[in-house]
Amino acid sequence: MDETTPKVLAFDVFGTVVDWHGSIAAEIADRFPDVDAAEFARAWRAGYQPAMASVAQSGEWVRLDDLHLQILRNVLSDFQLSVDEAEAAELNLVWHRLRPWPDSVEAIARLRTRFTVVPLSNGNISLLSDMAKNAGIGWDAVLSAEIVRRYKPDPATYRSVGEIFGVPDSEVMMVAAHHDDLDGAAAAGLRTAYIERPNEYGEDRPKDVSGRAEHPLHFADIAALARHLLAH
Amino acid sequence: MDETTPKVLAFDVFGTVVDWHGSIAAEIADRFPDVDAAEFARAWRAGYQPAMASVAQSGEWVRLDDLHLQILRNVLSDFQLSVDEAEAAELNLVWHRLRPWPDSVEAIARLRTRFTVVPLSNGNISLLSDMAKNAGIGWDAVLSAEIVRRYKPDPATYRSVGEIFGVPDSEVMMVAAHHDDLDGAAAAGLRTAYIERPNEYGEDRPKDVSGRAEHPLHFADIAALARHLLAH
Repeated sequence: MDETTPKVLAFDVFGTVVDWHGSIAAEIADRFPDVDAAEFARAWRAGYQPAMASVAQSGEWVRLDDLHLQILRNVLSDFQLSVDEAEAAELNLVWHRLRPWPDSVEAIARLRTRFTVVPLSNGNISLLSDMAKNAGIGWDAVLSAEIVRRYKPDPATYRSVGEIFGVPDSEVMMVAAHHDDLDGAAAAGLRTAYIERPNEYGEDRPKDVSGRAEHPLHFADIAALARHLLAH
Repeated sequence: MDETTPKVLAFDVFGTVVDWHGSIAAEIADRFPDVDAAEFARAWRAGYQPAMASVAQSGEWVRLDDLHLQILRNVLSDFQLSVDEAEAAELNLVWHRLRPWPDSVEAIARLRTRFTVVPLSNGNISLLSDMAKNAGIGWDAVLSAEIVRRYKPDPATYRSVGEIFGVPDSEVMMVAAHHDDLDGAAAAGLRTAYIERPNEYGEDRPKDVSGRAEHPLHFADIAALARHLLAH
């Protein structure tokens, strides 16, 4: 397989394109000066995998905005913060306002000159479209787990990209800062590219961004991916 | 209902945002100088409503690209043109390359400063995203009948907009150059705005763009809609 000729690039978003930790920590620090904002952000995100698993098990679709709100209520309670329903709903939209990593917007724009470039996120469509508008990210379309009502790593989610664009799965490249996302994509027949985002969980909590043999395309950031793909 | 405060604008695309007739006639004239290109374009489009109706009746989803190809084969035969499979497939993509009306791109960009603006077309997602890229149209997301696998005027298609964006149907405005599309939207609880496109079927075949009482918001073009909505 020639890794230089995918037709469609499908991007994971949280952590890969946008800095969820820094964005949420900044907003929490503004609103609640007395809490450990970095820990609050990590606690909120920590509820994500269990929520996904629970939706997958139940077979009942719940969009990510609603899961985020459920998790938020628990985290607020754990941090002994009391906010009313309207404020919780407004705070929950911080996920629609996440800031991009410094290289993301420009590198995605460059990639769009050669490829069809879309998000493939568990975030719902309105979350992803608000985020794109706030951050100035241009996508060719907004794909989401919401379209197939199956969260990654369900193979149906990964395969929706090729189905929608009428290309074989082998011409779709999943781009993510998480090896498990890439594992799911590879199992569904997609190509993969890993993006290092060592500070995804905060500068005080650097994560292991070592390469793995099963995902040999490995880049420091999206700008480096763009240089690689556009050089051929 | 205050017509000045929708949250989401959902645009019909073929005829409303892009000039399907002029775009297709130009490409047909280039490829087949001996046929009546304007008639060819109208014949291709004339197959659309029967194809929609047949999909609705069968309950079996077929995306618009595939319907367009089936219709194209019949039209080529009617015009006694013989083209191979590869050329037919390539010609079928003319729908991905339709040119916008002169006011569309800029007016949609202006509307996006205040509203969430999306297409709501029977065109499939890849058709709409290729079209947006070719034409330079910026959308906040690409909605399509393909997401709900129901063609307009099925109420589920119109209602998908409010569901996806988490707003009541009454805060969604359908914008179209076709009264029957607006009828379907209104029946599903959406607001409506009519756009005149008198030359949708060609300058030699001007269509009736008279107002109808049930759709009192009536504009010469999308630029006029933008002036109206942004003035309040």
